[in-house]
Amino acid sequence: MSEAPTAWYRREGLALLTDFYQLTMIYGHWKDGRTGQRVCFDYFFRTLPPHAGFAVTAGLAPLLDYLEHFQFQEDDLSYLKSLAIFDDAFLDFLRDFRLKPTVHAMAEGSLVFPFEPIVQVEGTIIEAQLIETALLNTLNYQTLIATKAARIGLAANGDPVMEFGLRRAHGPDGGLSGSRAAYIGGCTSTSNVLAGKVYGIPVSGTHAHSWVMSFDCELEAFRAFAQHHPDRCVLLVDTYDTVKSGVPNAIQVFKELHDAGQPIRPAIRLDSGDLAKLSKIAWKLMHDAGLEDPLIVASNDLTEDLIADMKRQGAKINAWGVGTHLITSHDCPAFGGVYKLVSIQENGNWLPRIKISSNLEKATDPGRKAVYRCYNKQQQPIGDLMALQHESPQSGAVLEGRSRNWLNHKEVLEGVDHTEKLHQLVFDQGKRVHSQESINDIRDRTQTQISGLSDEFKRLRNPEIYRVILSPELGNLKETLIAANSKH
Amino acid sequence: MSEAPTAWYRREGLALLTDFYQLTMIYGHWKDGRTGQRVCFDYFFRTLPPHAGFAVTAGLAPLLDYLEHFQFQEDDLSYLKSLAIFDDAFLDFLRDFRLKPTVHAMAEGSLVFPFEPIVQVEGTIIEAQLIETALLNTLNYQTLIATKAARIGLAANGDPVMEFGLRRAHGPDGGLSGSRAAYIGGCTSTSNVLAGKVYGIPVSGTHAHSWVMSFDCELEAFRAFAQHHPDRCVLLVDTYDTVKSGVPNAIQVFKELHDAGQPIRPAIRLDSGDLAKLSKIAWKLMHDAGLEDPLIVASNDLTEDLIADMKRQGAKINAWGVGTHLITSHDCPAFGGVYKLVSIQENGNWLPRIKISSNLEKATDPGRKAVYRCYNKQQQPIGDLMALQHESPQSGAVLEGRSRNWLNHKEVLEGVDHTEKLHQLVFDQGKRVHSQESINDIRDRTQTQISGLSDEFKRLRNPEIYRVILSPELGNLKETLIAANSKH
Repeated sequence: MSEAPTAWYRREGLALLTDFYQLTMIYGHWKDGRTGQRVCFDYFFRTLPPHAGFAVTAGLAPLLDYLEHFQFQEDDLSYLKSLAIFDDAFLDFLRDFRLKPTVHAMAEGSLVFPFEPIVQVEGTIIEAQLIETALLNTLNYQTLIATKAARIGLAANGDPVMEFGLRRAHGPDGGLSGSRAAYIGGCTSTSNVLAGKVYGIPVSGTHAHSWVMSFDCELEAFRAFAQHHPDRCVLLVDTYDTVKSGVPNAIQVFKELHDAGQPIRPAIRLDSGDLAKLSKIAWKLMHDAGLEDPLIVASNDLTEDLIADMKRQGAKINAWGVGTHLITSHDCPAFGGVYKLVSIQENGNWLPRIKISSNLEKATDPGRKAVYRCYNKQQQPIGDLMALQHESPQSGAVLEGRSRNWLNHKEVLEGVDHTEKLHQLVFDQGKRVHSQESINDIRDRTQTQISGLSDEFKRLRNPEIYRVILSPELGNLKETLIAANSKH
Repeated sequence: MSEAPTAWYRREGLALLTDFYQLTMIYGHWKDGRTGQRVCFDYFFRTLPPHAGFAVTAGLAPLLDYLEHFQFQEDDLSYLKSLAIFDDAFLDFLRDFRLKPTVHAMAEGSLVFPFEPIVQVEGTIIEAQLIETALLNTLNYQTLIATKAARIGLAANGDPVMEFGLRRAHGPDGGLSGSRAAYIGGCTSTSNVLAGKVYGIPVSGTHAHSWVMSFDCELEAFRAFAQHHPDRCVLLVDTYDTVKSGVPNAIQVFKELHDAGQPIRPAIRLDSGDLAKLSKIAWKLMHDAGLEDPLIVASNDLTEDLIADMKRQGAKINAWGVGTHLITSHDCPAFGGVYKLVSIQENGNWLPRIKISSNLEKATDPGRKAVYRCYNKQQQPIGDLMALQHESPQSGAVLEGRSRNWLNHKEVLEGVDHTEKLHQLVFDQGKRVHSQESINDIRDRTQTQISGLSDEFKRLRNPEIYRVILSPELGNLKETLIAANSKH
């Protein structure tokens, strides 16, 4: 092997991972001498995935890796030259180009809501455009999967959830990044060994039907597996007939181990048929055979709805393996995060910008902003307030603001015990500010925030809408800019 | 930059891109001395994506790259050792392990149908299991996207289709592999510059709303863009008001260029609003201004259904930019290809194996097989015949076989002019047999095969079901094995 392939995990060599129009626009800005124009862009989303009450932001660490390693390579420049579109002097400009943006962001693993700036990028117009596509690619996918994993976790209600999606993921990195995001969102392990190596995620997995089929009989296959893997012996019982063959053979093996003085927790996996019904039958067979507290794992095209419904029916399943529907977010496989200009600098002053739309809800929130999460005395978030960065935070039990959709309508957040500013500086003029968080710290943040959220936002269907309001000053600014821009 | 990152594109360093249970099973086989057991696995799928009459196979070349470069690295082995599950002697076995499978496959870009073995892997049980997950990951995703691109191409009916999906793709490789597959399926270009560099796919793109917003007025922005990019001047006309501002300003710029002796094809892009209606208005405005044969590009959450419907309404759109719905195959983001044992070798003889199911359709087709595509005199495929590899091909105008779902029911393919054997040897005991095909050759194959397919299989809704039948010998074998296995 000529090269170590780890550059991929560190997001190196991705300067060309961009939409071509970014380069044609940058070329125009360069030709016109606008390379120094400073701008501020927000990354945010407008709509939660179907039925979700919150999203879980993920992908920030890989984004910072990308920013840190951004550099055009000689073969990138040769390729661009081969297109016969760009001046050589422009290619020289790209050769020497280094990213030096300043980035504020919500901590990875935070719960986030529509229209909140999750990541704010300040830099030159060249920087801001060059990174747009890769930023969206990274944050959209990982946020999508972390959010889906969190929903599955809500359905599983404390049971372990194993991510089994690699074979249906969108390519190698769909699997690797997806495993990372699923773990952040609350999965307890992954089947993806590379994700175990690269990200330190616990790996899980035992055997497939092919193991059983490679033996002359199921009992022999189970005995052999238990012998080789006594510490992780979860027997897959549905190769031939779950009730008549698989479960009885598994029971026999667990009893043999017990009799041989090697007692292990009886554990089986169901992968076909009516999982809820079979789990109850299997549990009773094991219970009647004297095997207590069995682990019964279920897999096979599971979704959060199916898990919730099987639990409602009293399924005796206490661990869940979820593949396709998790790793592709099957019912909504795209997260619609966008990246919009909110401010430009002129003569050293930041001027707010807005993109209006025929639909007021789609109009962007102008200016460089801060977001304050407001908690009640029970330490539960009750709403978020978006303000301009220069505003002093409001204090007191009642915070005043404006509705995003009805700008002259006063809204208040009541019963506020304290507020927390959500953004932190993560990248300062091209330099990473903090060392990399461990993935377990990120995952713990998500778990803590989900635990702290009150139930109305955690329903799997029709959750309460979490309130995000604008400060009076931001609301007034937005109203003024909309009026001014309507003259176009 | 310490390392060139191109190992990623060559699928190097992916030995751990696998489900953990493959390793626990292999460990068991190794412990029991079954490492030399030779087996044959088929990659096939059971169900086409919704409403599709055919699938387009893609991902073979990246799969062969992966096989060619498969090797455990020292840090892979260190990671596995850290799990404290495997003997050191097993890790030594993996260190020295080299893949030497023999692979037969349908050519990449071929049209394929349910239950046909698209890729057949012969090797030891260790080899066959080790590669399963990465094989499924690669072939499932690329086949999914190539198939979706082909459907969009059917809707566009000859108009160029540009793939614009990178920002909603599932991570960097979801974008890169997805662009590759979309091009194979019939897209004419991609916005993804990295895909242009790595795969030689034509890149396209002009400017975004942010270009227009970075100028004081739209007309100035258009003039500047036309000046910098006269050869690729497609003006995005919906930043402020398509009809009142965007199109008139674009017309003015195209007329100014004409008057200055620099006539270029007038070209605009519509990205919001009622695209069909706006295209007609824009076309008439341009026509009335003396601008002939304008290029009108549409984008914004397009699907094959929406494209077909807008064409039905006479939209004056002649190029399509498709992002989210293409790169995620939004209505069905997973392709359900599976990989099943079909034969094992004992004492030098290949013995067919079957996996039965309560549903006859899901029972696998046993044995090492060949597939013959049957053409009529008009060179149109009329059905495929699956036979055992050792069978002599049938000849004549009527080929006899069995239904997959009703094994004792005789089926015939009539009016057969000639047949074509679909598999070729692509990997011979660990060695690549052919040099890499160019992506344009693969794409041409797809286009030729789609052109040759009769219309009933190309409807976007309720297409005719293409017939795939079993040879009498294969049908009899399957029936015999089902009867024998039912005794379990």
